[in-house]
Amino acid sequence: MVEEVLIKEIVKKVLETFQNEEKNIPVEVSARHVHLCQEHIEILFGKQYGMTKKKDLSQPDQFQYNERVTLIGPKGIIKGVAILGPPRDKTQVEISKTDAKILGIDPPVRESGQLKESESIYIATEKSVIQAKESVIIAKRHIHMNTEDAKRFNVEDKQIVSVRVKGQRPVIFEDVLVRVNNRFNLSMHIDLDEANALGYSNDVLGQIVYF
Amino acid sequence: MVEEVLIKEIVKKVLETFQNEEKNIPVEVSARHVHLCQEHIEILFGKQYGMTKKKDLSQPDQFQYNERVTLIGPKGIIKGVAILGPPRDKTQVEISKTDAKILGIDPPVRESGQLKESESIYIATEKSVIQAKESVIIAKRHIHMNTEDAKRFNVEDKQIVSVRVKGQRPVIFEDVLVRVNNRFNLSMHIDLDEANALGYSNDVLGQIVYF
Repeated sequence: MVEEVLIKEIVKKVLETFQNEEKNIPVEVSARHVHLCQEHIEILFGKQYGMTKKKDLSQPDQFQYNERVTLIGPKGIIKGVAILGPPRDKTQVEISKTDAKILGIDPPVRESGQLKESESIYIATEKSVIQAKESVIIAKRHIHMNTEDAKRFNVEDKQIVSVRVKGQRPVIFEDVLVRVNNRFNLSMHIDLDEANALGYSNDVLGQIVYF
Repeated sequence: MVEEVLIKEIVKKVLETFQNEEKNIPVEVSARHVHLCQEHIEILFGKQYGMTKKKDLSQPDQFQYNERVTLIGPKGIIKGVAILGPPRDKTQVEISKTDAKILGIDPPVRESGQLKESESIYIATEKSVIQAKESVIIAKRHIHMNTEDAKRFNVEDKQIVSVRVKGQRPVIFEDVLVRVNNRFNLSMHIDLDEANALGYSNDVLGQIVYF
């Protein structure tokens, strides 16, 4: 009984540290998107076509094009999917589990770039269609931060942490990947299913839970 | 520093109790569904029509009909929505945030039965259509349990708890409602967004976290 009271007291103290504003992490929703390799851009839009930038994203040098593509799976299609730049060495498609069910595929939950034995999908424009083999993942939730942030949060690159996100339906996400790079801006990225599950709104903040 | 070690030790102990099998709670996904009042059943299917049972559900006396309806919102429609029985005093529609965006409505996250100022929707069959005013909610996640379970978990009816669910993407759901009734079978109910966010599979289990 004494032990139980002690646990409650200590956990209360831990929870209080969440109110420290310096510990807040902005949370962004990564909607479904594709990163295309140069070859696929040329097939889908034409060799002479010049892709146009729509807007910059939160991480440096990352941006969204005005152009969009259609994903075609064995069970369904999804139109108007955003393309992010700059081009990558290998085409990568990031969708949610909800999207995967619509398309009829079963992609793994993975870090960006880990595409081995991931799912395949057809990507189409009005001009052409390609099959992007081993390209589709459900992005593993992660936090971008610079080395100063990492010091402040007492974490390091590739560390797995738990993050409390206080949306309308508060949750603690376990198994969140920390990615440290001096060019990163502090931001936690979740997918649309995770956003819907926590009652996301733009001002939602996350805080690392130190179990 | 001593305090930090102490916290880690105690939290570790708390986490270990999760391995106690007696503490496991089966987790079920509530897909989108409607509960219809008798009047709406008669309008949508006809006064003489006899609704037919498809299957029993996990809670006593609750079942699914073979018949289905279409939801019509300002932005989209969803076909083939399950109807649960028996009929209720007031029609209630339970959908996910993903569904709400498809339909173009913004229902509140609520306990079953709390429909005041909830969203409205059109419900249609091939025969007819009705407007169900203040009927649509996103169901607040909850646990059904009997009084013995409640004793074992050291919780009471209407208590709010946190539940760790160890899917492929483990999460701790805060703000989970406990509902105690001697006729209930032990089961936690989440919606499809929550299921997708945690990497749900049928054998997923939850455990109450005693913060």
